[in-house]
Amino acid sequence: MRIAIDAMGGDHAPKSTVEGALAAAKEWSDIELILVGRKEELEPLLKEAPANITLHHAEEVIEAEDEPTRAVKRKKDASMVVAGRLVHDGLADAMISAGNTGALMTTGLFVVGRMEGIKRPALAPMIPTLDGRGVLALDLGANMDSKPEYLAQFAVMGSIYRRKVHGLENPRVGLLNVGTEPGKGNELTKAAYPLLEGLPINFVGNVEARDVLTGACDVLVCDGFAGNILLKSLEGTAGALFSLLKQEFTKSLKNKLAAAVLMPSMRGLKQMMDYKAHGAAPLLGLGGLVLKAHGSSDGEAFMNAVRQAREAVKAKLNDSIAEEISREQVGQ
Amino acid sequence: MRIAIDAMGGDHAPKSTVEGALAAAKEWSDIELILVGRKEELEPLLKEAPANITLHHAEEVIEAEDEPTRAVKRKKDASMVVAGRLVHDGLADAMISAGNTGALMTTGLFVVGRMEGIKRPALAPMIPTLDGRGVLALDLGANMDSKPEYLAQFAVMGSIYRRKVHGLENPRVGLLNVGTEPGKGNELTKAAYPLLEGLPINFVGNVEARDVLTGACDVLVCDGFAGNILLKSLEGTAGALFSLLKQEFTKSLKNKLAAAVLMPSMRGLKQMMDYKAHGAAPLLGLGGLVLKAHGSSDGEAFMNAVRQAREAVKAKLNDSIAEEISREQVGQ
Repeated sequence: MRIAIDAMGGDHAPKSTVEGALAAAKEWSDIELILVGRKEELEPLLKEAPANITLHHAEEVIEAEDEPTRAVKRKKDASMVVAGRLVHDGLADAMISAGNTGALMTTGLFVVGRMEGIKRPALAPMIPTLDGRGVLALDLGANMDSKPEYLAQFAVMGSIYRRKVHGLENPRVGLLNVGTEPGKGNELTKAAYPLLEGLPINFVGNVEARDVLTGACDVLVCDGFAGNILLKSLEGTAGALFSLLKQEFTKSLKNKLAAAVLMPSMRGLKQMMDYKAHGAAPLLGLGGLVLKAHGSSDGEAFMNAVRQAREAVKAKLNDSIAEEISREQVGQ
Repeated sequence: MRIAIDAMGGDHAPKSTVEGALAAAKEWSDIELILVGRKEELEPLLKEAPANITLHHAEEVIEAEDEPTRAVKRKKDASMVVAGRLVHDGLADAMISAGNTGALMTTGLFVVGRMEGIKRPALAPMIPTLDGRGVLALDLGANMDSKPEYLAQFAVMGSIYRRKVHGLENPRVGLLNVGTEPGKGNELTKAAYPLLEGLPINFVGNVEARDVLTGACDVLVCDGFAGNILLKSLEGTAGALFSLLKQEFTKSLKNKLAAAVLMPSMRGLKQMMDYKAHGAAPLLGLGGLVLKAHGSSDGEAFMNAVRQAREAVKAKLNDSIAEEISREQVGQ
């Protein structure tokens, strides 16, 4: 299988992307990695590259500050766009990028292209949970105003992803809502509820925001607006609490000494709550697999993203999604 | 001024309501408190009541488990409904209840009645912030699907409340959104943005969920759905973190000893993050002032709710809101 990597995307690229690619190519002999980016910068880093890494030149780079849609339109020879084209043309089975998120979603939609029958692709990061299973939340992307049938498609795609890529047998799918009773919610969630009930998934009903972290479900379905509010308030609250704790813990010498003992535990917790550390987020519902790695990814994070891509391609994730969507006429 | 108290509402009623009323009546001689509830239960507690407390009998009680709309409709002689009627009839300037939230919103809407020109009343609790100022968030009530003009009215009402009741000079009003740039958001927030810009308030633009706790604004405007997701994920994350910390801190004897030193700080933090402890939430946009005290309120919490009601009535909160809404034709 062939996996394209946007070698220029991410805060530490191309060092991080090349390091990750080298490690992954060594680990798995059944993959071919295509590093897409500026030859001049990549070649020096790839002197002792194994045979299953190839370089694909792309002259331009989309920057973090670029306006997404315009950047994808104008920079036709950007590493991200070229990687997307490889997927579109069937020359790669998957692509990974740690670049500009908006630009990657635009690349997914307009370069890779939507999967037939899918109304809206969805960005699906993992949110850490207390029980360590994590929850795949979708959509955390650009679909600010969703329709009930989009949510139904998100539910099916998320459920298949967790089954095929994470090996969960019967993933519990929840609908982000303001109460657990079926009649609760806004117009969107009230209309989505019966649609989700009718799907061949393990729908566990409405899930309140406060129960997400305790692991109430394995897949959390929501529109992009509510999902953003959820994710950013998790992030904000955790950050605020840690900074408050730090303040309290350095108030006196006594506190400082006690806090020093607890520091390793605190650091572990902080890491656990950092959703960015929990792997690359798939963009589901496209003609090929696209994975968004976090901007700050290092070599190890890229290697892990390759692992995810490999699992998904091996498990024929996209074929399963396409089949299920068309067989059940989900959202049609 | 007269303030009606639903003496039967709350987990610790009527002990808590009577205690709070006694303390408040003693503290402020310019108020008359009307305790509404079952005579048989209240009289024994009121033996040495000062002259500015009167008892108003109401035979029934709305329970926490009651279905809100039905309860308000059927239990016409419930303490909450009777207190609402006193406000509607001009026999009380404000009412306070720690009872069933849904029933209180129904009482507000159908017994007290909407203020002229107001499309939707809003429930506005305070969310604690790191800088200690707190943020008044509205709507956290029943308006799941808002319209831009409702949000505009929320902005005006919240701004006036913080000015009149909390004494903030120029409260910063923010719009809960997924990014800080003006063009960000869903259809609702994109349409609300220019409306808020046009109001005679200190509109500071979009506020992301992660910046709410750090005190990015004094009034946070949102629809009831997004507000619920925000508040419950703050609550859930704080709860999850504290339980994780507890787990870590009791892992070994060394940790336990260190944690014991830090316990007072931790407890303080936990309390600080508990939005329920931050006073009663006004229901804004009604014909009279209605305050929702938390269900677990004790005597002190009720006394504080009376303090809030007294400030609001003294400051002619409702007249100011009515004037501003009609003068500026907000949401019309």
